[in-house]
Amino acid sequence: MMQFLTHGEDGFERAFERVVRDRRESDADVARDVARILSEVRERGDRALVEYTMRFDDHRLTEDGDWRITAEECAAAHAELEPDLRDALQLAADRIRAYHEGQLPEDRDYTDTVGMRIGARWNAVEAAGLYVPGGRAAYPSSLLMNAIPAKVAGVDRLVVTTPTPKGESNPLVLAAAHIAGVDEIWRVGGAQAVAALAYGTDRIGRVDVVTGPGNAWVAEAKRQLYGVVGIDMVAGPSEILVIADRDNDPDWIAADLLSQAEHDPTSQSILITDDRGFAKLVEDAVDLQLMNLPTAKTARTSWEANGLIVVVDTLDVAIPLADRLAAEHVQLAVADPEPLFQKLRHAGSVFLGRTTPEAVGDYVAGPNHVLPTGRRARFASGLSVLNFMKRTSFIDANPQALAAIGPAAIALAHAEGLPAHAKSIELRLK
Amino acid sequence: MMQFLTHGEDGFERAFERVVRDRRESDADVARDVARILSEVRERGDRALVEYTMRFDDHRLTEDGDWRITAEECAAAHAELEPDLRDALQLAADRIRAYHEGQLPEDRDYTDTVGMRIGARWNAVEAAGLYVPGGRAAYPSSLLMNAIPAKVAGVDRLVVTTPTPKGESNPLVLAAAHIAGVDEIWRVGGAQAVAALAYGTDRIGRVDVVTGPGNAWVAEAKRQLYGVVGIDMVAGPSEILVIADRDNDPDWIAADLLSQAEHDPTSQSILITDDRGFAKLVEDAVDLQLMNLPTAKTARTSWEANGLIVVVDTLDVAIPLADRLAAEHVQLAVADPEPLFQKLRHAGSVFLGRTTPEAVGDYVAGPNHVLPTGRRARFASGLSVLNFMKRTSFIDANPQALAAIGPAAIALAHAEGLPAHAKSIELRLK
Repeated sequence: MMQFLTHGEDGFERAFERVVRDRRESDADVARDVARILSEVRERGDRALVEYTMRFDDHRLTEDGDWRITAEECAAAHAELEPDLRDALQLAADRIRAYHEGQLPEDRDYTDTVGMRIGARWNAVEAAGLYVPGGRAAYPSSLLMNAIPAKVAGVDRLVVTTPTPKGESNPLVLAAAHIAGVDEIWRVGGAQAVAALAYGTDRIGRVDVVTGPGNAWVAEAKRQLYGVVGIDMVAGPSEILVIADRDNDPDWIAADLLSQAEHDPTSQSILITDDRGFAKLVEDAVDLQLMNLPTAKTARTSWEANGLIVVVDTLDVAIPLADRLAAEHVQLAVADPEPLFQKLRHAGSVFLGRTTPEAVGDYVAGPNHVLPTGRRARFASGLSVLNFMKRTSFIDANPQALAAIGPAAIALAHAEGLPAHAKSIELRLK
Repeated sequence: MMQFLTHGEDGFERAFERVVRDRRESDADVARDVARILSEVRERGDRALVEYTMRFDDHRLTEDGDWRITAEECAAAHAELEPDLRDALQLAADRIRAYHEGQLPEDRDYTDTVGMRIGARWNAVEAAGLYVPGGRAAYPSSLLMNAIPAKVAGVDRLVVTTPTPKGESNPLVLAAAHIAGVDEIWRVGGAQAVAALAYGTDRIGRVDVVTGPGNAWVAEAKRQLYGVVGIDMVAGPSEILVIADRDNDPDWIAADLLSQAEHDPTSQSILITDDRGFAKLVEDAVDLQLMNLPTAKTARTSWEANGLIVVVDTLDVAIPLADRLAAEHVQLAVADPEPLFQKLRHAGSVFLGRTTPEAVGDYVAGPNHVLPTGRRARFASGLSVLNFMKRTSFIDANPQALAAIGPAAIALAHAEGLPAHAKSIELRLK
């Protein structure tokens, strides 16, 4: 059953700490299976992809047409969409692009106090690979949120891999790929797809960065290939934390909690409020909405297994609790959210005020919806154009600048037992 | 023996591609050992640390004084340094700090075209852990390069772990810790130290990010704990690529190549030049300098195993080769390096002109010397203050802004089969 805790009561600290520490992540031991798949794809390339795709997706890769979904197919899927939906995807894409363009980092190039020119220059990676799950988790919004930052960063080649069980793909995802300008789509999924992206095969050129959601095999493949390619964060089950006072409509808050719960049985929805009566109203509203929700099966499982309501004396107490949870999404549903927001340190994304439901950020607000989960907002950020770029620092020393600071480097090099380091500077100071 | 290749000759492409693909990294299968160490520290905490430290470092952790190196010991080590060395460390620290202060990212906070307030705010992580190797690889410069960005980022607590075999530590490293303002130093090393930092024990509070160099066990521990904590890049053997025309002093270039080679037998030094005669002069100069170099044993092993000279027709040809190598360090030893630099895309750090030896960047220039190795400059950047910070995006929708874009989100939510998402917006638009 959903937990109901009261801050300050006996046992609160232990129960809350258990929530903070609970990983809700599969401990399925897939590491060995994944390692074998990676090694097979590395050694045998496309032949391994053919075998795994037959075995796992019941799809035979023989002709070129079996391997790829073409740009024409994506354009057709886009043309065939209902106009309302096509416009909604386009609005989302335009707003995501506008927000991410503001993330493009500035180069540095300056001359310092000793006359040394120093700086750093950003470049896009050459190629990015985006994993798109098949089935339930194939969301066009996810494709936009991963593909558009890569395009804004300036990658030359944006490659999607996606399983197409029995050859079937999701037209909404293809339409989103058309809008985002994806360059290649391969009908390959699972750890084998990530291996193909990282190592390259005869057909699939290797990429530099792999992002995108996936099941435990995909996540483990990314983890094992981290270093061979860049990856985005290790993603776990997602969560929402709503901090709300009594002046909210309980129905609104219940819908917010359920919008997280309907994602997956492992999702987590948490309410912190300073009013016990309001807490009960929300609890009742959740139960009522679950009666008519088409996704009730998933949402109820999530709410019962992971749902939590915490009653606190004042909302100021909520903030240190929120920092311990470091939730992916935090809603501050109060009339003046700013003072609470200023005190909050750890959150993936924050939704300010009563009329900012988290769902608006999932689709159309602009900021990325790929966010750190499972308390990782303590140290990680959402996906951004920086995931598809890298920085090269540079130094340009004229003889005067080298004379000014070279002797210190020589002293340190000798102290570290690295005489050739010292000599490379000494020779130039003669 | 060191390889000598000529661009355009038969077999060049195959030989060069072999260099590009050669990982030079230990394939030692330490994953299982490391997994057991991590699990022991997670389960048994300090008791496991006591056992491993006795076994691996011959150091008994009983009294508090066995566990920690105090701030007073660091201050004493600093006070006892030769003045020249103390000044050199201080100069390095000051310049590193000045450069990294320029990396502090700016927050965003703006109102967009539909009246929605959107932005992103950066915060430092609460605690950072820095691994400092014992023995040969214990460099005070590394401590500064890791610790100062964390301090500039604004971490509350900066923790060092370092093995002290038989209790011995390196006074230069302690002096650097004093200068950098390290908050705690624990006499624990290896995978067990990384586990303690990530999970926390009774004595050692857990941190949010772990950086710093280490052996294969430390690197594997960081990889396995990636996601529990943030980590810096997976580091491999380092490399230098010098692109030089005939108008350089061969002795200078030879010293540059050896400054990389003396680090480790797995290091790699590469020269690309457009003059065969100059190439031979550098080769001879390397051999000559090796005769008097105190680190010749390591440097010769590295040079013979991994050294490479490539002769090209023109230096323009060098740039695409350099991009394939994506080297940690690239020196452009020509009179006007700017045109080459503009064409170069993949490098950790670039050293411009004849009087900018790479070694000056190792110590005192200011930019970080923790850089992507093993071709990872294709997708990774050097260490920066961003490794110790994270970004929280935020959205503030007033009713008008929600009315403007909410319907598109509702349409997409329904299309993705997420009705509670839709409802959380619909209720607010009524």
